[in-house]
Amino acid sequence: MSIDNCRIIDLPKIADQRGNLSVIEGGNQIPFDIKRVYYLYDVPGGSARAGHGHKELQQLIVAMSGSFDVIVDDGNGRKKFQLNRSYFGLYIPKGMWREVENFSSGGVCLVLASTEYDPLDYFHDYDEFKKFVNVKNNSLQQ
Amino acid sequence: MSIDNCRIIDLPKIADQRGNLSVIEGGNQIPFDIKRVYYLYDVPGGSARAGHGHKELQQLIVAMSGSFDVIVDDGNGRKKFQLNRSYFGLYIPKGMWREVENFSSGGVCLVLASTEYDPLDYFHDYDEFKKFVNVKNNSLQQ
Repeated sequence: MSIDNCRIIDLPKIADQRGNLSVIEGGNQIPFDIKRVYYLYDVPGGSARAGHGHKELQQLIVAMSGSFDVIVDDGNGRKKFQLNRSYFGLYIPKGMWREVENFSSGGVCLVLASTEYDPLDYFHDYDEFKKFVNVKNNSLQQ
Repeated sequence: MSIDNCRIIDLPKIADQRGNLSVIEGGNQIPFDIKRVYYLYDVPGGSARAGHGHKELQQLIVAMSGSFDVIVDDGNGRKKFQLNRSYFGLYIPKGMWREVENFSSGGVCLVLASTEYDPLDYFHDYDEFKKFVNVKNNSLQQ
């Protein structure tokens, strides 16, 4: 997987004067079943989260309120997405490093995840992540 | 099912000075798999949504930002829950009527749902919903 596989998904938006509604079904708007949902809230402005990588986990990230930036990194290149609309979701395939930063005050970040929590799926060290993706890419080329 | 089966679930909260994180896994914090996620946003203060009932759908409702009230009704009684914390979720079992009202400006309402969208599972008319639950309750008593 490369950062070019990270993409903004335009989610269905049902506009209404009482408030708008957007919907995400597993296997429909996103290419995975939703096993886990988590969200960041009570975030101070300018805040950033520690970066981390995943082996298998796929995610969809949505700015439910306010805005923040997501940096994706496939071990060979980086790309930054600014999220600030509730009807746009950033799809991140497996094998990616991600950093979330530049939160607006009170920003809310919703994450839909393709697997249950598995500490063995995480990289907290960037060099280890890079080693993993390069070994994987080399084995695919042979 | 009665309104007494509607309950507030205290979701895991990982407190952090960079922002708090809460997590919900299907079959873990909630008694169903997450088939669909939808959310209401860009909501004007004081707004209310049209009430509706469900035959089979189970839901968890979370105030991701701001506050709102949820009224649940089993055809025989009503109960009001005020949601205003991101780490509390209101679980609504199947066979309930619900109304969402009294939104704070910019409130964000997240809903995790146990089924994909099925228009045949909805009641938009309260009297029809009441007839359905009473017929069901009577058949269970026989």
